[in-house]
Amino acid sequence: MEGGNKPQVNPGILHGMITERVIKGIISPVGDAYKKKGLISAHHRLIMAELATKNSNWVEVDTWESLQKEWVETAKVLRHHQEKLEASACDDQQSSPVLGRPGRKRKWAEQRQDCSQRKSPEQTKTKDVPKVKLLCGADFLESFGVPNLWKSEDITKIVGEYGLICVTRAGNDAQKFIYESDVLWKHQNNIHLVNEWITNDISSTKIRRALRRGQSIHYLVPDLVREYIEKHNLYSSESEERNVGVILAPLQRNIAEANTEEIL
Amino acid sequence: MEGGNKPQVNPGILHGMITERVIKGIISPVGDAYKKKGLISAHHRLIMAELATKNSNWVEVDTWESLQKEWVETAKVLRHHQEKLEASACDDQQSSPVLGRPGRKRKWAEQRQDCSQRKSPEQTKTKDVPKVKLLCGADFLESFGVPNLWKSEDITKIVGEYGLICVTRAGNDAQKFIYESDVLWKHQNNIHLVNEWITNDISSTKIRRALRRGQSIHYLVPDLVREYIEKHNLYSSESEERNVGVILAPLQRNIAEANTEEIL
Amino acid sequence: MEGGNKPQVNPGILHGMITERVIKGIISPVGDAYKKKGLISAHHRLIMAELATKNSNWVEVDTWESLQKEWVETAKVLRHHQEKLEASACDDQQSSPVLGRPGRKRKWAEQRQDCSQRKSPEQTKTKDVPKVKLLCGADFLESFGVPNLWKSEDITKIVGEYGLICVTRAGNDAQKFIYESDVLWKHQNNIHLVNEWITNDISSTKIRRALRRGQSIHYLVPDLVREYIEKHNLYSSESEERNVGVILAPLQRNIAEANTEEIL
Amino acid sequence: MEGGNKPQVNPGILHGMITERVIKGIISPVGDAYKKKGLISAHHRLIMAELATKNSNWVEVDTWESLQKEWVETAKVLRHHQEKLEASACDDQQSSPVLGRPGRKRKWAEQRQDCSQRKSPEQTKTKDVPKVKLLCGADFLESFGVPNLWKSEDITKIVGEYGLICVTRAGNDAQKFIYESDVLWKHQNNIHLVNEWITNDISSTKIRRALRRGQSIHYLVPDLVREYIEKHNLYSSESEERNVGVILAPLQRNIAEANTEEIL
Amino acid sequence: MEGGNKPQVNPGILHGMITERVIKGIISPVGDAYKKKGLISAHHRLIMAELATKNSNWVEVDTWESLQKEWVETAKVLRHHQEKLEASACDDQQSSPVLGRPGRKRKWAEQRQDCSQRKSPEQTKTKDVPKVKLLCGADFLESFGVPNLWKSEDITKIVGEYGLICVTRAGNDAQKFIYESDVLWKHQNNIHLVNEWITNDISSTKIRRALRRGQSIHYLVPDLVREYIEKHNLYSSESEERNVGVILAPLQRNIAEANTEEIL
Amino acid sequence: MEGGNKPQVNPGILHGMITERVIKGIISPVGDAYKKKGLISAHHRLIMAELATKNSNWVEVDTWESLQKEWVETAKVLRHHQEKLEASACDDQQSSPVLGRPGRKRKWAEQRQDCSQRKSPEQTKTKDVPKVKLLCGADFLESFGVPNLWKSEDITKIVGEYGLICVTRAGNDAQKFIYESDVLWKHQNNIHLVNEWITNDISSTKIRRALRRGQSIHYLVPDLVREYIEKHNLYSSESEERNVGVILAPLQRNIAEANTEEIL
Repeated sequence: MEGGNKPQVNPGILHGMITERVIKGIISPVGDAYKKKGLISAHHRLIMAELATKNSNWVEVDTWESLQKEWVETAKVLRHHQEKLEASACDDQQSSPVLGRPGRKRKWAEQRQDCSQRKSPEQTKTKDVPKVKLLCGADFLESFGVPNLWKSEDITKIVGEYGLICVTRAGNDAQKFIYESDVLWKHQNNIHLVNEWITNDISSTKIRRALRRGQSIHYLVPDLVREYIEKHNLYSSESEERNVGVILAPLQRNIAEANTEEIL
Repeated sequence: MEGGNKPQVNPGILHGMITERVIKGIISPVGDAYKKKGLISAHHRLIMAELATKNSNWVEVDTWESLQKEWVETAKVLRHHQEKLEASACDDQQSSPVLGRPGRKRKWAEQRQDCSQRKSPEQTKTKDVPKVKLLCGADFLESFGVPNLWKSEDITKIVGEYGLICVTRAGNDAQKFIYESDVLWKHQNNIHLVNEWITNDISSTKIRRALRRGQSIHYLVPDLVREYIEKHNLYSSESEERNVGVILAPLQRNIAEANTEEIL
Repeated sequence: MEGGNKPQVNPGILHGMITERVIKGIISPVGDAYKKKGLISAHHRLIMAELATKNSNWVEVDTWESLQKEWVETAKVLRHHQEKLEASACDDQQSSPVLGRPGRKRKWAEQRQDCSQRKSPEQTKTKDVPKVKLLCGADFLESFGVPNLWKSEDITKIVGEYGLICVTRAGNDAQKFIYESDVLWKHQNNIHLVNEWITNDISSTKIRRALRRGQSIHYLVPDLVREYIEKHNLYSSESEERNVGVILAPLQRNIAEANTEEIL
Repeated sequence: MEGGNKPQVNPGILHGMITERVIKGIISPVGDAYKKKGLISAHHRLIMAELATKNSNWVEVDTWESLQKEWVETAKVLRHHQEKLEASACDDQQSSPVLGRPGRKRKWAEQRQDCSQRKSPEQTKTKDVPKVKLLCGADFLESFGVPNLWKSEDITKIVGEYGLICVTRAGNDAQKFIYESDVLWKHQNNIHLVNEWITNDISSTKIRRALRRGQSIHYLVPDLVREYIEKHNLYSSESEERNVGVILAPLQRNIAEANTEEIL
Repeated sequence: MEGGNKPQVNPGILHGMITERVIKGIISPVGDAYKKKGLISAHHRLIMAELATKNSNWVEVDTWESLQKEWVETAKVLRHHQEKLEASACDDQQSSPVLGRPGRKRKWAEQRQDCSQRKSPEQTKTKDVPKVKLLCGADFLESFGVPNLWKSEDITKIVGEYGLICVTRAGNDAQKFIYESDVLWKHQNNIHLVNEWITNDISSTKIRRALRRGQSIHYLVPDLVREYIEKHNLYSSESEERNVGVILAPLQRNIAEANTEEIL
Repeated sequence: MEGGNKPQVNPGILHGMITERVIKGIISPVGDAYKKKGLISAHHRLIMAELATKNSNWVEVDTWESLQKEWVETAKVLRHHQEKLEASACDDQQSSPVLGRPGRKRKWAEQRQDCSQRKSPEQTKTKDVPKVKLLCGADFLESFGVPNLWKSEDITKIVGEYGLICVTRAGNDAQKFIYESDVLWKHQNNIHLVNEWITNDISSTKIRRALRRGQSIHYLVPDLVREYIEKHNLYSSESEERNVGVILAPLQRNIAEANTEEIL
């Protein structure tokens, strides 16, 4: 999934902030059909995600989203992962995975719930299964306000059925954004704001810029990722022009649907 | 107790923000021995607090603190109210009161806890008794950083044993203040930040200024309070000069104790 | 009339700021034809204005504007009230009313002028009659810069023939706006800036939001108004959608006229 | 007199802003006894003031203050000029001078009043004589808040008996300063705030800095003044050290008087 | 050429900041075909430029650009002046001119280079000839980001072949703008940022506004220019309306060319 | 040496920014006698510096300063390293080292100069030897303004004889600081400001805070350093209290010397 800058967190930090237990994180790179300007091939993005998380014992990279031919709505990606978790829950409760989402790579943080066998009807779905949550930065949250970027029913699903963990350096702005949106306000108990006290200013924009200019990206990305980028010369003035002038998939789909409705 | 501007809240708002149940609020005006510049007699302040809360069904004014000859530390006032609550808890659990603290008037918000008869050792103290919490604004929180104003063991007691409900219009600053203090950070789960989305700029400073200048304070304080102020001409250039040049009681006491320790 | 947030003033405050005498204030709710998003029926708005000013001895609510089928330009509403004042001036100079304009409710502050019988030609019109002035906030003033919202001859009439009393919390921005507009600069002696030293952040947007969310609006509006709103359930998600997608009456009229002129 | 940056105004600008008529301006350089760090000899400052105003038909330089051996309080300088005006008023009302005060050079703007022969007792003093007013910038106004710099009775005299014309680029800050001071608020009708819409950043500090560094001050001061400065090498690292470590005359006097009072 | 506010510099200041020698400055008023709103006739602008620089021993006014019937791209104006310099270089190296560009008047600062007779092929062009550089303010630099205002090859030529001297009061913003542009970054060694430590707020907008309102522009422009303006009544409400609704020449040309390319 | 936050640079970045060649960097941890609050033993700080630069081919750690019993002025440390460079220059010009200074660890960036055998008298000292420069952040630069922290002759030596490379994220503030200081302005050609475009917010304060609170410092310091810190439990509430109440060595020395001079 897409959504601005991506938070760098580890389960310990989340553990301190939110009261539930984080079991695992999933990185899900977006597919090429997302059509973002400068987006390089999913193939490379998957490998870089693998390299970056090689030594992590809690984050894993998932290929499902990136392999879809069409762009898949975030709410559907969340559903896919929740269902996968539920399917595997009976077999092995230890391995139930969770979320993650930076750089049009999704991330989920999953939270282990109390496993007592309550079986009320509405709980059939989640039983004792960990819940997928979307991990994002403040700019992702604020993207909910961009016209035509999101279907309102998808926003409702994301914050209502799954939930957000939003890592931010300006918690108040995020709180204000939530306060001013009726749907976010309604589901505020499902949105966890985590303060990022030690910030950095590294962004993919700046890294791509440095690469275009032949500057070192030492210290800015993990060494393995840096070497892979350099070996394949992934980011150049040419790659930056990819999808230039192409409308972003969600905008294209949502505008088309809006027009169809109007005609009907 | 003293502590900058005072939040205006009702239990419903708190209810939405914090997960516990608010049973009642206590306003506890500070005693005259506090020696704050411009502080008028406790007698008048008590009556005004009564008038302001006449129609409230959840806030009550408590006279204990204001009747003490010596200034009483905030931690002790909290203990007094907690003990009073515990004493009355067996008799009538409905009436157990809670906190409040503006304008050197203390306020407590008490939160009804689950009343099941768990009797683990550490719970002996609080049993099923509501817990007193200190309701304050962001400037109160930040007063913890003023040299000599607070004994560090008192801060520890207040946030550790009781807890704060801090109503603020800039939640991020309060969070930063908490992050930068080791003791507040340690007890952060006991500090509830409540965003004040609809703010006003009324302060006792501005009201006293208006009164000194003969301007109307209509709409700025409840009518009954305004009439009482006007009838007794409570705030004038003279009253403003009260305690001028006198050192605030907590500063006086804490500096004296620090010197004593040094000598010993 | 419409115009952003509305100042809360009393004649005493105005009296201190401007040198003329304020005799009375008029609140004139805008008609339904104004077509503002979320604007509820004039019927309800009139009653709320009455309830809010029930105890005022200087503000009155006027129904004329709200009863017009078509939207009436602000300059015409001012003329209506000025003429009404002039008509009644001979009969009873004490009762000549003035001003008022918040929330698409107009407000006028009228200023009693020297009543000597000077009858110079240009004074025939206003004689000894109080003068209607438009009371507004800074956002109203700045709306003069919104393309197509105002006809420039209407702005000239409003500030040239009547005058503004602009209550603002950032006087300098208003002064800058005046400085940068040739027409406002020319009539600056007719624009009174009144500093709002004790501000609040209550807005109709925030009150409607609270009502939609089922939150208390205690302390935010007068009790009688609050009860009326609750009884008739005036503000809901549905009412918020009224006039959505409809172009504001002044924009519609001014754009149409501009096009007509172009054709001719 | 001293007081931060000095406004550059001409009578026409003042005329547009304030309703009274400006007749003449007086520049009154402070005496050497003022003991300001870097203050060069009054002799040179007088000549530069003369050179700077050579072509002015409304500003004149007055030597009285600069010739006093002791530092003279601003209120007394104003009284001196008011009395001088009154003495000359009968003889020649055209020439009655006024105002002026930048760079420890005083400036007065005098305003011609209605000359009808009202002789009420309190008006005996000012009769038909123009009134001296102190022309200053916002930093002068705010210097009233500096501890021990001003005697409170002198502030009262200056704003109560004479009045200020304060040229400022941030009118709101000046208004806030006035609002927060009881004495300025009381005499606010005697304080004229004039917005400086076209600002510059030239200050004597920057000019002296440029001179110390051998940089050109072309365009920054009038040519005649520049030539005089260069010829006499007025500002150097040495001149900058003058009065270093010496306490400013007003601080010295006011602190001494405060101590004397305490002893008595 | 056009480009926002114009820096006031003298060769001495430049000399301190940049390491090369400044020989002369050229002011080149833009032609009438530029079609800027409120642009008065080149005839008058030329004369005013002459009057303003009458006493300068290093700035001269050049008429070539203003005499062109069509609007001439800035890069071409720079080439014209560079070629003129090169042509005259052999004859008289002292008189080789440079630079200048305010108010759609171009300015060049030319820098004398080492005159040794190196004749490497790439140096044939500039030999010992001074190099024309464009002198501008920060807003000119930032205009490079305005869509369609500049052809990207022209920006490359200007910063690559000639160079900029950018006088700014917020050097960091200019540096950030350069950092974020690949082409400016590439040629950053050819862009000299000069801090303007003593700023003023005089702009042609404000001067024209003062003239429209009949206010004095004393001290704001040189006396000779002011007299010329007043004599010919150059700036009025009418002149301000010139070219209203007309598209700026560069926008017109660049958009047209873009469309042509698309068709082909 | 001490001096606020430390820049993270590599020779490539410096290379792009400054025109001289960087040969090597020296980290010189301050001695324990510096007496900074919370400063842990030089022994540990040396080892951590070694671990952090283990893989660097251009930075080395120097023990000289940290082994001095008394605190050594920065100017003397620079002289020590310059002399060492000069001594070794004849033997092996390749290995001539350079600077570095974070966290009371000095850093020098040395710049290889043209090695031709010019032997003018003033160049005897530096011959073909690389020049030591002090690498710092903006807060170090601004520490020059802290009273008594620096002897003015030491500042003159540092910027005059050696030079600064100041890495900053707000270049303009640094430029302003330089502009306002006569000595820095004089030597501005010896102060290189390097913009830090990709910033981070990691500081030793924040890292020590995280360690005190038992939070992970993964990603915040190199792995080897983190392991060393954890193994020796270097930063705790206790270590934070070291030197509390002790006056910083430079303040102590400079104040003592100032008093001595006064007595003499």
